[in-house]
Amino acid sequence: MASMRVDLPISEMPRQWYNIQADLPRPLDPPLNPGTGQPLGPEDLSPIFPMNLIEQEMCRDRWVDIPSEVLEAYALWRPSPLFRARRLEEALGTPAHIYYKNEMVSPAGSHKPNTAVAQAYYNKCEGVKRLSTETGAGQWGSALAMACAIFDLECVVYMVRVSYDQKPYRRVLMQSFGATCHPSPSELTATGRKILAEDPNCPGSLGIAISEAIEDAVSREDTKYSLGSVLNHVLMHQTIIGLETKKQMAMVGEYPDVIIGCHGGGSNFAGLSFPFLADKIAGSHDPEVIAVEPAASPTLTRGPYMYDFGDMAQMTPLLKMYTLGHGFVPAPVHAGGLRYHGAAPLTSMVKAEGLIDAVACQQRQVFESAVLFARTELWLPAPETAHALHVAIEKAKQAKEEGKETVILFNFSGHGFFDMSSYEKYFAGELVDYEMPDEDIQKALQDVPKLGS
Amino acid sequence: MASMRVDLPISEMPRQWYNIQADLPRPLDPPLNPGTGQPLGPEDLSPIFPMNLIEQEMCRDRWVDIPSEVLEAYALWRPSPLFRARRLEEALGTPAHIYYKNEMVSPAGSHKPNTAVAQAYYNKCEGVKRLSTETGAGQWGSALAMACAIFDLECVVYMVRVSYDQKPYRRVLMQSFGATCHPSPSELTATGRKILAEDPNCPGSLGIAISEAIEDAVSREDTKYSLGSVLNHVLMHQTIIGLETKKQMAMVGEYPDVIIGCHGGGSNFAGLSFPFLADKIAGSHDPEVIAVEPAASPTLTRGPYMYDFGDMAQMTPLLKMYTLGHGFVPAPVHAGGLRYHGAAPLTSMVKAEGLIDAVACQQRQVFESAVLFARTELWLPAPETAHALHVAIEKAKQAKEEGKETVILFNFSGHGFFDMSSYEKYFAGELVDYEMPDEDIQKALQDVPKLGS
Repeated sequence: MASMRVDLPISEMPRQWYNIQADLPRPLDPPLNPGTGQPLGPEDLSPIFPMNLIEQEMCRDRWVDIPSEVLEAYALWRPSPLFRARRLEEALGTPAHIYYKNEMVSPAGSHKPNTAVAQAYYNKCEGVKRLSTETGAGQWGSALAMACAIFDLECVVYMVRVSYDQKPYRRVLMQSFGATCHPSPSELTATGRKILAEDPNCPGSLGIAISEAIEDAVSREDTKYSLGSVLNHVLMHQTIIGLETKKQMAMVGEYPDVIIGCHGGGSNFAGLSFPFLADKIAGSHDPEVIAVEPAASPTLTRGPYMYDFGDMAQMTPLLKMYTLGHGFVPAPVHAGGLRYHGAAPLTSMVKAEGLIDAVACQQRQVFESAVLFARTELWLPAPETAHALHVAIEKAKQAKEEGKETVILFNFSGHGFFDMSSYEKYFAGELVDYEMPDEDIQKALQDVPKLGS
Repeated sequence: MASMRVDLPISEMPRQWYNIQADLPRPLDPPLNPGTGQPLGPEDLSPIFPMNLIEQEMCRDRWVDIPSEVLEAYALWRPSPLFRARRLEEALGTPAHIYYKNEMVSPAGSHKPNTAVAQAYYNKCEGVKRLSTETGAGQWGSALAMACAIFDLECVVYMVRVSYDQKPYRRVLMQSFGATCHPSPSELTATGRKILAEDPNCPGSLGIAISEAIEDAVSREDTKYSLGSVLNHVLMHQTIIGLETKKQMAMVGEYPDVIIGCHGGGSNFAGLSFPFLADKIAGSHDPEVIAVEPAASPTLTRGPYMYDFGDMAQMTPLLKMYTLGHGFVPAPVHAGGLRYHGAAPLTSMVKAEGLIDAVACQQRQVFESAVLFARTELWLPAPETAHALHVAIEKAKQAKEEGKETVILFNFSGHGFFDMSSYEKYFAGELVDYEMPDEDIQKALQDVPKLGS
């Protein structure tokens, strides 16, 4: 039996994003100025972001219109297909119905362009000529590079040097889209120069790259900074995923019992799940919603819920979130997009409020599931995505034991075509698992400012 | 202005392939037994191919039903979208309408699965348990590996050793689909052992890999051989591309004046163009149809039309085709899929009959066009695909000069995500152009058997 694709016609593509801030049980704790401990106002963020995105960040309207220029860009690859994974179900011998939303179909190969396109558009509207950002392995950088090509913006990406050197292909993709990519630390910023003076061979880190990208933006009139996850407006842009999925599930007459997304900063998880959480909050449905993270970076499962910095260099505001401490350096698991010490304030709050669950997985079992998926459903998942599908498979096995036709939905957030070296290591038996000792977490949390104490 | 996607609903997906053999001005010259010079019968091919595919190879019915199992597999990614490249048109300032059919959307990233799925299915029907094939850079090998995963066949791929070592990622993709991939020459066949005995460091060639794959198939009861281009049935399976495109062009009320495909063995070119050639033969339309090849392997533009072997090792039947000589080794251009000495007998005949034109391009100008395309249309083309889009751009420039609204259609046969090292070389200014000297062609043709003399 072949698997089944559920296409939503272009005419049915949602025209608004869903803003979960309108439906939260209580208002989100505000970002704080680290110097004063006081809530930030819009003007505090204006050196970094354009005012229209700052307003969106703080907006509490339930529905926000998607600009027609963004809809036109989305229509190059959206609505993305929903699949029922019948061949995977068959391989598992499960009575569960497994559905996945396929976000690999964008030109950059992941869900990231959903917000990159919107951010580039809003910056363009405010007269911004140039966007700066950071990237680790390059998935976000290539999405923003693509979006800047659409709206004729310059794009400069600070890429962690070790990735820049060892994984050149996403860098070449960014270059193909017309972006400029610098290894970080670089000689282009004071932060970079200071670090290189101390250690000319510094391999870089996401924290350093963020610092350089922000410094680049605040030091130039024509430039703003762009972030690919964590922030409220970023998560809202991603809700197009879940809104489409709701329509597609309705087309086949089903509603998910379990909804699963991998979780790094929170954007693909929120994108799929928040529109369904609206139903849960309203009481019309009660799906189990699960965020999946690597055991090497167990933010939601083992971190406390507290104010912390978003970056290692302490340049961001303080955000209320689950955190392992901004100084935490996760073990080098292959799901680079999930190696983040914190979590989006919005996903943190729905976790704290008991609306979602979180689980952590080891990467070898995740790759085992990824290969089973490739051999049945044929799409090769990114290692990040494989975390979500691994838990979907676990849930389908549980449904088999219980003899239940559980309806399972997960987000297939991106393809693995730029992660083949990780698959190569998996097949060669070279992947190792990591479990964080409790004392390491406690140690990493020592540097987090104790607000209110 | 955003570019425009034209989706064909799944319910409108064609249920039959188009067989151009029914409409040719004269019957195709038959394949010949190299020993006797006599036409081959079905039984001559039976050690290599299953009888249902041999019958399809010789079939002259205009329409051949696509089995429902193949349609179900196609429906994972088909119908593929047609795009109007409005942003590219705008960048060129051309009045031309540029359309492209996007075949990169398959799980293997190219048009190749259209025939791989069909071949795996037909072999499965005849009780075959295992398929062998060769691959150069790996695009065909990964498509067949994917197809074998669908129908639970074993898949063994002989991959040219230099690619196996230097471009491991397509090999890892094949492995992800469950295929076994051997560097060729290998110790597994008499051919491979003989070559390795003479030269333990032999880098391999497509000709050697074909020999090993055929030897593997004929030496085992459970195994048949599978080829990704050149043969009649392979080209017929690809006509789903053009048949869908005709419906999509009709949806927007246009018919192409110019139809373009890159040409290596001929399968993606034929897949798009043959359904339109049917109209040309019938006299209802008169599109200009152009096959694009690399100047380093100028088969259709500079080779003679004559009988020759399909492979270097002279294991195949003699085929009537344009050829540069079976001993010809093309320069190492980055469009690996276009580095073939011959051409499909069907594309050769339509060329000889004046139904199509052919042009040859240098790779640096091709990559320049590829980057323009990525920055406007956002999909990153494979180097092979970039040959077609380069000529589409040339035609659009010509339309601008002439002030004509020429309707241009080309086949976007696959993505370049496994070709990033080629883009890297392009950006670094390291690509070189190749022009074949006439005397090299004459020399390569000396070994071709002179039939009838």
